[in-house]
Amino acid sequence: MKRATSPPELLISLTPDADVPLRLQVERGLRQAIRSGRLPAGALLPSTRVLATDLGISRGVVLSAYDQLLAEGYLVAERGSATRVAERCAECAADSVPEVRTTATYQYDFRPGVPDMSLFPRNAWLNAMRRTLSVEPAGIFDYPDVRGIEAARASVAAYLNRARAAETRSDRIVLCNGFAQGIRLVSHVLRERGIKAIAVEDPIDADQDTYLNAEGLQQIRVPVDEDGLRVDLLSRTDARAVMVTPAHQYPTGAVLSPSRRTALLEWAVQRRAIIIEDDYDAEYRYDREPIGSLQGRAPDYVAYIGTASKMLSPALRLGWLALPAQLVDEVARVKFTADRGSPALDQLALADFLDRGELDKHLRKTRQIYRSRRDELVTALREHAPELRVRGVAAGLHLLVEFPHVVDEQRIVEAAAKHSIRVVASRSFRTERKDQPKALVLGYGRIDESKIEEGIHRLSRIISV
Amino acid sequence: MKRATSPPELLISLTPDADVPLRLQVERGLRQAIRSGRLPAGALLPSTRVLATDLGISRGVVLSAYDQLLAEGYLVAERGSATRVAERCAECAADSVPEVRTTATYQYDFRPGVPDMSLFPRNAWLNAMRRTLSVEPAGIFDYPDVRGIEAARASVAAYLNRARAAETRSDRIVLCNGFAQGIRLVSHVLRERGIKAIAVEDPIDADQDTYLNAEGLQQIRVPVDEDGLRVDLLSRTDARAVMVTPAHQYPTGAVLSPSRRTALLEWAVQRRAIIIEDDYDAEYRYDREPIGSLQGRAPDYVAYIGTASKMLSPALRLGWLALPAQLVDEVARVKFTADRGSPALDQLALADFLDRGELDKHLRKTRQIYRSRRDELVTALREHAPELRVRGVAAGLHLLVEFPHVVDEQRIVEAAAKHSIRVVASRSFRTERKDQPKALVLGYGRIDESKIEEGIHRLSRIISV
Repeated sequence: MKRATSPPELLISLTPDADVPLRLQVERGLRQAIRSGRLPAGALLPSTRVLATDLGISRGVVLSAYDQLLAEGYLVAERGSATRVAERCAECAADSVPEVRTTATYQYDFRPGVPDMSLFPRNAWLNAMRRTLSVEPAGIFDYPDVRGIEAARASVAAYLNRARAAETRSDRIVLCNGFAQGIRLVSHVLRERGIKAIAVEDPIDADQDTYLNAEGLQQIRVPVDEDGLRVDLLSRTDARAVMVTPAHQYPTGAVLSPSRRTALLEWAVQRRAIIIEDDYDAEYRYDREPIGSLQGRAPDYVAYIGTASKMLSPALRLGWLALPAQLVDEVARVKFTADRGSPALDQLALADFLDRGELDKHLRKTRQIYRSRRDELVTALREHAPELRVRGVAAGLHLLVEFPHVVDEQRIVEAAAKHSIRVVASRSFRTERKDQPKALVLGYGRIDESKIEEGIHRLSRIISV
Repeated sequence: MKRATSPPELLISLTPDADVPLRLQVERGLRQAIRSGRLPAGALLPSTRVLATDLGISRGVVLSAYDQLLAEGYLVAERGSATRVAERCAECAADSVPEVRTTATYQYDFRPGVPDMSLFPRNAWLNAMRRTLSVEPAGIFDYPDVRGIEAARASVAAYLNRARAAETRSDRIVLCNGFAQGIRLVSHVLRERGIKAIAVEDPIDADQDTYLNAEGLQQIRVPVDEDGLRVDLLSRTDARAVMVTPAHQYPTGAVLSPSRRTALLEWAVQRRAIIIEDDYDAEYRYDREPIGSLQGRAPDYVAYIGTASKMLSPALRLGWLALPAQLVDEVARVKFTADRGSPALDQLALADFLDRGELDKHLRKTRQIYRSRRDELVTALREHAPELRVRGVAAGLHLLVEFPHVVDEQRIVEAAAKHSIRVVASRSFRTERKDQPKALVLGYGRIDESKIEEGIHRLSRIISV
């Protein structure tokens, strides 16, 4: 049953059998009429008695709806009883067509920087969340400790000490939203301390560049070779902070060599400098166990950043900092003003997941899968594109292939995309080096092993054109 | 069975029956010896053969452990075969006593700004998470859309349109980490647009003050009276942005009156200004339904900020922005550089929770509980402290009691604490007004109804001293 009122601009549809109370229906109908301009500013409304009769509902319902819209300012009541539409102030946003952001899907997807999303341990994560919601006291629903919930920090510290050879403990940990927030927090504190420039690896991931720029930190680019950061060149700069990816550099895949590690730590001590250790995809090392963190060798000089993004999923936005004691309070204060702490339930689920060895189990499983993909990828490259130099195969979820001569990488990336192959060119990272060979980054986090050979075969034909 | 090696400083304890492989035990033992200084920089290590014999394990295990520590830079191998401890660079952080941050518990806890944590709908939330983890495709484990997952934004938009009389849609929504991040994001964009000052309500919550300061926004304080923000005084400033809490001001509890609402929107249109609407605890209104948002009346001028903090729990750190079209892309870009998006699973759980009407159900239940507490509190105040003026009772989770004469509020807060009563003084918010009466904020989000009368009775004796 539908009824309409007169005057016609006050057309309100009521559906008496609906779940929505009549009063709300009247309110919404009036609001809509006002917003759409059908009831213009200054228009006189019918008396509640007339409208009630028109709509075949009780006057109390209409009165109540008018009261609500008076309170919200849609209507104004004049002395006496006349009710009018209030001065409208803005047009409602026109209903433009919503933008469509399709994520293209590729048949051969060598996108780097992401793990295989189909491997996410859904059941184990849900179980961790279930236990969290069952056993934790009500206090966890309060504002969390801005550094992260104590129990979660303790679990992360234990994990880092055990699995990453770190040297930390719960009161040196700050939990945050992925790497991005981690680097922002630390950079912000450095900036507050008067540090204006930070040394970074060259080449460097474009996103890192964005985060550092956002804090106004100038970047001093220090080249990376196959042994990682050129610490000798770092020493010639006047940097008092450096960001490094010792476990597996992005994009080159280099692992920082033992002598460079020692030299880097010596540099930090002499310079009283801070090393930011981006422990990028460190857990994936295939031919040996992962190399321990730098942090464990110099906890007072290294601000360590790790995340669940490569091990589990970037969608969790779970990151952790293991900080020198001198930085903890400052970072926590910046975290407070940024977002007042990270979500508590996710932290506790992570803690449960770590404490029960679920992460170790997950890594044991995925390491095998990724190693096998890497082997397949290296073999396919050797067979179909032997002229390319393959680098950074020891660890991580990507490798780098360098061209022996100058090529237009972007042309290759675009041509590959037309053949449903996704690869990333060095344009995706920043470099100032003229001698940097042209290269592609090939990730094997997403691609099914069975598609690797065919993908590389097709890519090789595009490259050789 | 435990064995020790000579030389004595190389004391390594092995537990052959433990879960940890022997190789790892050797590695950790050596790392620990190096870190602790028992094995100083430059010290010569025994040959792998000698150490293996000493420990009664195979030489391969020791070789493997040495290799790992060589890769990590703890050891250096000289030409030939001698292995030494590398130059150490920093002392490990001394084991200072971890700080203890105890949260005092009060028998009568009138802390404002938090809901009753024991009411968190644990089962319903877990079910929402379970469905999310069961039904969503693997793609949700990728980096999320930085504005929030489309489905979650659509659910939030539908909720706001329905329950808050908003006028928005998914492509105007940005999901964020609670109010704190929301205000930071919007403030940052305003600052980038050259807006240097923002009008704010006086008095204002001290935390808000912190967030605005962090973005370098100067504050122009505009008094609040019992009808909310004095829009007439706002007009005399040259502000091009204002932050308001129209639904229930903190701390005064004032509700922005209909004529002020209209005047505020007129001001925004004339000035081409942005209104930031902090929809603070709007869902709790007791004697009538909640007042609709300002945003619904002027979607192109109002940047709306809402959160799950008062409705569900601040531990979720779930917030949402409903933005004018012109601000969406800029806010999304700032969100990207801040943390690359909020956790995806939480967003999807929220969407499920909203779509299934679980939030409505939760609010129906809790509204009754809080109303009953409010009534009890108002009654107790009338009985035991009739000289106090009670304000802001219509909505929210707190009210304000004003003293008829000048008192030392901080003395009262401290004396109350000694009697296990927690109340908050106006010191917890910022004001520049000389005429602002001395007052206490009394929250009833946490306190059990049965304790309210006794708490107020005891408080009244402290006040009357």
